[in-house]
Amino acid sequence: LSTNKPARIALDAMGGDFSPGEVVKGAVEAARLGGVEIKLVGPTATVQAELAKYNAAGLPITCVEANEVIMEGEPPAVVFRQKRNATIIVATKLVKAGEADAVIGAGPTGAVVTSALMILGLAQGIDRPVLGGHICGFSPKTVVLDCGGTIDAKPAHLLNFAIIGTVYARKILNVENPTVAVLSVGAEEGKGNALVKETYPLLKGAGLNFIGNVEGNDLVTGKANVVVCDGFVGNIVLKFGEALGTSTIDWMKKKLQGKIPAADLEKMAEEYYGITNTFDDAGGGPMFGVNGISMVMHGRSKAHHFTKAITFAKTLVESGLINSVNSELERIGNK
Amino acid sequence: LSTNKPARIALDAMGGDFSPGEVVKGAVEAARLGGVEIKLVGPTATVQAELAKYNAAGLPITCVEANEVIMEGEPPAVVFRQKRNATIIVATKLVKAGEADAVIGAGPTGAVVTSALMILGLAQGIDRPVLGGHICGFSPKTVVLDCGGTIDAKPAHLLNFAIIGTVYARKILNVENPTVAVLSVGAEEGKGNALVKETYPLLKGAGLNFIGNVEGNDLVTGKANVVVCDGFVGNIVLKFGEALGTSTIDWMKKKLQGKIPAADLEKMAEEYYGITNTFDDAGGGPMFGVNGISMVMHGRSKAHHFTKAITFAKTLVESGLINSVNSELERIGNK
Repeated sequence: LSTNKPARIALDAMGGDFSPGEVVKGAVEAARLGGVEIKLVGPTATVQAELAKYNAAGLPITCVEANEVIMEGEPPAVVFRQKRNATIIVATKLVKAGEADAVIGAGPTGAVVTSALMILGLAQGIDRPVLGGHICGFSPKTVVLDCGGTIDAKPAHLLNFAIIGTVYARKILNVENPTVAVLSVGAEEGKGNALVKETYPLLKGAGLNFIGNVEGNDLVTGKANVVVCDGFVGNIVLKFGEALGTSTIDWMKKKLQGKIPAADLEKMAEEYYGITNTFDDAGGGPMFGVNGISMVMHGRSKAHHFTKAITFAKTLVESGLINSVNSELERIGNK
Repeated sequence: LSTNKPARIALDAMGGDFSPGEVVKGAVEAARLGGVEIKLVGPTATVQAELAKYNAAGLPITCVEANEVIMEGEPPAVVFRQKRNATIIVATKLVKAGEADAVIGAGPTGAVVTSALMILGLAQGIDRPVLGGHICGFSPKTVVLDCGGTIDAKPAHLLNFAIIGTVYARKILNVENPTVAVLSVGAEEGKGNALVKETYPLLKGAGLNFIGNVEGNDLVTGKANVVVCDGFVGNIVLKFGEALGTSTIDWMKKKLQGKIPAADLEKMAEEYYGITNTFDDAGGGPMFGVNGISMVMHGRSKAHHFTKAITFAKTLVESGLINSVNSELERIGNK
């Protein structure tokens, strides 16, 4: 994609706890920032009514009709047969049809993931969408995969995560020759659980910039650019770090209340939230390993999250990430 | 043990980067706090020379001769044959012989662990010493096991960790009926990796106060008193949290330098270090599953760490923890 051509983002207007109000508000803001064309997918009349609240005429925002909504708790597989006109399904189909470059949804995670899976399909060698990315603000050049997609991972999965992460670090973090490591409990070769021990030679022979094992602390110090682990460990570490961040903010506020100006304290809290709750702060995270760009957002997302997510999706589109990931998966998979 | 009887602590005087100076200094301080009898194990002349620096006459500190020292990097198994008079071996033998109630060592971890293993022996149903305990200051009533002993754990191991943790929470954290959970990636039964799924029914049927799965964030919020996981996950989470804590302190100092009094900032940093680096702050952690009390300390321990570790060992001795753990392991193991 040429950078002159705006990224076309399909946005589920009815996804999330504060939809459609916050979704539309965030979309308007993102459209003002430029470089995107936004397709708001939902009941047109409702979406138009929201748009009317802003001076949105002339902005590159269009409405795409879809009048069913998938609710939290509805089994995605059933919904897929019964609600063919659901907003997230229609939005994802726009990507499949080449009418959008990325889809973003803050509705039930299962619905966003299943839509991507069933409509866009998985890349070669991938069993399930891979979640993850940049998990700690203290190590801005480190990505961790998987963070919850593949719970019982096999060595071949970890190799795929390493490939995806390498392309991501190159394209999105601008690291020329990203270092790759496997998350373990000791730096030396031979330390680790059975999965790590089997994965080590696979990574060593893959033609990646493999540097061996890293430990839990190295996720913070940023010893490697790409750290692979199974989705079980990745998810636990991610959620532990987020909670530690949130509790630290409460603690910090208690300690500093009245000692520094309230506005400074609020700014510190916000910055620290961004450092420790990177996904939430970015509005969500991309799914890897599907044939297209699909971003899962938190249900509690507010307008600024949607703006951030749209901007992030634009970066992903412009980077050509998905094509590169898929061709790398194919290249190394065929070796 | 009656609380009137002082706890007898065997301390490796030559263990750690700052031995014997800091070890002896910390021991003197602990002896002054009372309730302990300390046996400093090392070359008597050297230890006496250190003791002479303090007004230690009359304190319940005695010297036990041992003139060999195990160095970092020496394979414990070999050392065990060649250095029978090593300080940590002699110190651990005091516990075995009933002449001490606990042993503490800051020498190479492998040497402390191997000594405990070979001299004290493992409790029923335990394959390797279990490490862990209280890992986050925001959840003061939560212990996590295992944090690095058993990397590829089986369901039966996790059951044993749950038993050990329950006794620990009852005796040391003063929780009457400790809740037990297994660390996973979703709260619902059936969520998790293969190990979690197999462990779930085992924990459910063990007669413990089992509340199901908890997630990474629950380690911080303290949803359960005892959280069990394999040593791989536990170790990674532990080290991740420690590093996040240390980096947060650096960040906090940068943000607050000049904005609050330096002494206040230093106090905040120290408190936060204690919250996020609980083991280091306590001077080390106990080993569970061995027939006696053995505490592993960090090599970089300073005097106040030794004082804290001795005080902690005293608590462990007075609680009768080891006997309770071992009889519980036996009781549930025989069911």
